[in-house]
Amino acid sequence: MTNTEMALLQLDNYGPWTVTPEPRREMHLQSMQSRLYGDIAQFVGTRDGYVFPAGFDNMVAVTNGFTIDDLESMQNLVAERYPVTMSVSVASGDSPGTALAEATTALQDRGSAQSADRSAVLCGETLRPTERSPSDVQIAHFDVVDAIACYTDELSAYDTHVTIDTAYARLRDRLYERHDALSFFVGGDNVIAVCPGLSEDACMSAIDDVRSTVGVELRVGSGTGVTACAAGLLAKDALETCRHHGTLIEQGSHHPGAAAEPPTNE
Amino acid sequence: MTNTEMALLQLDNYGPWTVTPEPRREMHLQSMQSRLYGDIAQFVGTRDGYVFPAGFDNMVAVTNGFTIDDLESMQNLVAERYPVTMSVSVASGDSPGTALAEATTALQDRGSAQSADRSAVLCGETLRPTERSPSDVQIAHFDVVDAIACYTDELSAYDTHVTIDTAYARLRDRLYERHDALSFFVGGDNVIAVCPGLSEDACMSAIDDVRSTVGVELRVGSGTGVTACAAGLLAKDALETCRHHGTLIEQGSHHPGAAAEPPTNE
Amino acid sequence: MTNTEMALLQLDNYGPWTVTPEPRREMHLQSMQSRLYGDIAQFVGTRDGYVFPAGFDNMVAVTNGFTIDDLESMQNLVAERYPVTMSVSVASGDSPGTALAEATTALQDRGSAQSADRSAVLCGETLRPTERSPSDVQIAHFDVVDAIACYTDELSAYDTHVTIDTAYARLRDRLYERHDALSFFVGGDNVIAVCPGLSEDACMSAIDDVRSTVGVELRVGSGTGVTACAAGLLAKDALETCRHHGTLIEQGSHHPGAAAEPPTNE
Amino acid sequence: MTNTEMALLQLDNYGPWTVTPEPRREMHLQSMQSRLYGDIAQFVGTRDGYVFPAGFDNMVAVTNGFTIDDLESMQNLVAERYPVTMSVSVASGDSPGTALAEATTALQDRGSAQSADRSAVLCGETLRPTERSPSDVQIAHFDVVDAIACYTDELSAYDTHVTIDTAYARLRDRLYERHDALSFFVGGDNVIAVCPGLSEDACMSAIDDVRSTVGVELRVGSGTGVTACAAGLLAKDALETCRHHGTLIEQGSHHPGAAAEPPTNE
Repeated sequence: MTNTEMALLQLDNYGPWTVTPEPRREMHLQSMQSRLYGDIAQFVGTRDGYVFPAGFDNMVAVTNGFTIDDLESMQNLVAERYPVTMSVSVASGDSPGTALAEATTALQDRGSAQSADRSAVLCGETLRPTERSPSDVQIAHFDVVDAIACYTDELSAYDTHVTIDTAYARLRDRLYERHDALSFFVGGDNVIAVCPGLSEDACMSAIDDVRSTVGVELRVGSGTGVTACAAGLLAKDALETCRHHGTLIEQGSHHPGAAAEPPTNE
Repeated sequence: MTNTEMALLQLDNYGPWTVTPEPRREMHLQSMQSRLYGDIAQFVGTRDGYVFPAGFDNMVAVTNGFTIDDLESMQNLVAERYPVTMSVSVASGDSPGTALAEATTALQDRGSAQSADRSAVLCGETLRPTERSPSDVQIAHFDVVDAIACYTDELSAYDTHVTIDTAYARLRDRLYERHDALSFFVGGDNVIAVCPGLSEDACMSAIDDVRSTVGVELRVGSGTGVTACAAGLLAKDALETCRHHGTLIEQGSHHPGAAAEPPTNE
Repeated sequence: MTNTEMALLQLDNYGPWTVTPEPRREMHLQSMQSRLYGDIAQFVGTRDGYVFPAGFDNMVAVTNGFTIDDLESMQNLVAERYPVTMSVSVASGDSPGTALAEATTALQDRGSAQSADRSAVLCGETLRPTERSPSDVQIAHFDVVDAIACYTDELSAYDTHVTIDTAYARLRDRLYERHDALSFFVGGDNVIAVCPGLSEDACMSAIDDVRSTVGVELRVGSGTGVTACAAGLLAKDALETCRHHGTLIEQGSHHPGAAAEPPTNE
Repeated sequence: MTNTEMALLQLDNYGPWTVTPEPRREMHLQSMQSRLYGDIAQFVGTRDGYVFPAGFDNMVAVTNGFTIDDLESMQNLVAERYPVTMSVSVASGDSPGTALAEATTALQDRGSAQSADRSAVLCGETLRPTERSPSDVQIAHFDVVDAIACYTDELSAYDTHVTIDTAYARLRDRLYERHDALSFFVGGDNVIAVCPGLSEDACMSAIDDVRSTVGVELRVGSGTGVTACAAGLLAKDALETCRHHGTLIEQGSHHPGAAAEPPTNE
């Protein structure tokens, strides 16, 4: 069983800021948002976590292995370098969806996302080292079979974008509704799902569903690890195996570069 | 009638790069992609254009007012600072969708997105100053009525994300299929559509459709201008008017800070 | 005779900000400062200017070819994405030092660098197109002969740093005191000087002086152009010629990729 | 006695890269260098270290508390997101200068900074937890008394830059030659010195020397800690005390936000 630690990262009072004193130029906002996410991705990634944009004013992270100090350090990074602040709430559970819901509720209890009074709240607790195990995080990494040949090199760029996004939405809804897994589009034709110990059957069934409803053929590599990064690298290796062997589903085995056990001094 | 100049920005051979020599850490990819987009957004935005991610390996820009030298300068910015290169193709037309399709075809003719031989292609032509007019670009800026109170402060962060994304997908598909308009999610509860001179009726009809099918209430401000930025600032002002007056649709009139006519020396 | 347009870029009230409400972590400041300079360098560079840090809270730019709108756009870039604002003052003259001094005085007249009231001032005037000519900017690009073999691969990293910095300081002081030229260290063993039409004799004399006083052998390529970038690329090409021919001084001739005349539509 | 862990970060074969296939535009180089340093500063800073540019192709870090895995992770951050790679060498000693010299020699033994064969070397060893103590790092943070009133608001921007840089060079040379301390200019009128347990007398003597030779009045706050950040925050607090009390030298006592002892779980 997994024990995923999920953190909600929410910019404080961001909507009003974007139109104060008057609407800010959209490309300045885009540039700032994407840089901020890039900085958070660096911070989280070099601590073996994963973080995804969920509207940019919200980001969702898998933070197994983080301390509360790490989360506070991440907040400071924003507060000291950006014109906005960020609240963070963290919770753990055997299902990623439940953990994130708990983190969300705890943050909502501390004030509205558009309250001028709520600033850089930090709530929740991270896992203690003794609570951690090598099966805490399961990552499933999907991509589209022959995406370039079937779509990018054939369709208009917007049709490709819409097609892949539609397949992603279908996959996301199914994995969330049936399994409480959280899927995120991460660019190109790639979707990463944070899963609660999904079986091969469940994954194949989702792939079948996307094929039959949207007409897009997906494949998936999955991995399990003590951190998102450990699990994710296994998943990526498994997906490479799919590519080389022409298979639709593979499970990753131990990746030499990733720790299989909780690190003792990190 | 609009005359939108659309550019397709495509990273060359990006998929293979992400797994060479072995799969790269996802957060490094995320960080690089989002920084690259942030740099492009700065470049495009300070030249009064708009650019949107469409899978990150592809970006779509509205470039009315750019010269070919500007586009080449944008390519160099990537080539000289990132470990990847970027091809650019540009075309204009009275419909954004048709213009982008033409730009896509021209680039596809120059080689596959995953060809190791295609690198930093630049093709197509920008509008000559004499071809430009104050009605060249129409921007419609949508957001969700009471998004924070109804969703962010109420639902789990993932449910909010899914709900807004579902509304966006419905809006996008309708505007594209019926009007050849190109819509992009830009963060929070905001969607920006590049439109071919859409009527108020067409916009209200799309809003009605999203309400009745997805249950999400949208509102929209629109603007027309000689550049994406000029049109977009009018649209943002109009959306502010919606917020203050409680209306669902407004059209922007001339924004003092934006040029209504093609600049003579820029 | 040159006609260099120099802009002073000064962060407003920056010192107090760095210690409010308490001293900010140094690495957050470093990270923000260097990102901000990186963004300004992108903005200025893609408009064919040059910009150098002069303490980071001050930056000095060569902006021949910019409009006042460009400078305002550059200010907005900071104001909308960073937690600080930036004032800009611009002036032109046949000597870079005099032009910068005039720009400085004009800004000082508008309020102290540490006044909480002064924010995003923009003052001065840019050159009109009719005032511009292909000999407006002279750039001299110096580096150290055999820097890697003599220093980097031989001395402790700090000794290398000190040695090159000492040579730079000597060069800088001489060029400034005798010729009103402004020199900036730009990394590695490279120094770029913005010059008022320096002769070969003046450059060789400075090189001789650094050799005899500091013991470091410099070489230099110089170029003249309508913009800093046009002049700078000629200078870089000339410096490459020095490297290949073993000479200490070369003058660049027309670079095919750089405009020799004021562009008509930029 | 201090036990400073110093790391040399050196871009591999960077000089040749900047002119291949032809000289790259200077502002692209500046932008890339400053972003890279900004990323390293974020990485190092959120791990309680300090890092300084020493020509940008070289950076110098104080890494007490890092593991070798941290250093490797820092290298990967560069390799996966930038078009260049970075070698790292680390060593410790009771004097910062000696430690850095040892790190430099070890890297030189692995190949030239301009060898096409040397790429992303990692050498040396970090301190074991048992070797660490609360007095490992001493930081002295200098600034100029009344810098804004005396210089920024009075002199031309270039004169201010030259004056402060001249004072910095004098301070740097004295602290290095007499005490093997490593000083770095960090922006504005701030200099940070990594010291081997300097006495108040030694600091005052350096301040007296700069006043009498360059005519610039410095003041200094110092602190000692288990990491650069812990020591540096104490130093910053002490410097604030100087500002408030009008004193020239203060020593920081325990900062509530910084760990005085080696953290047990980081």
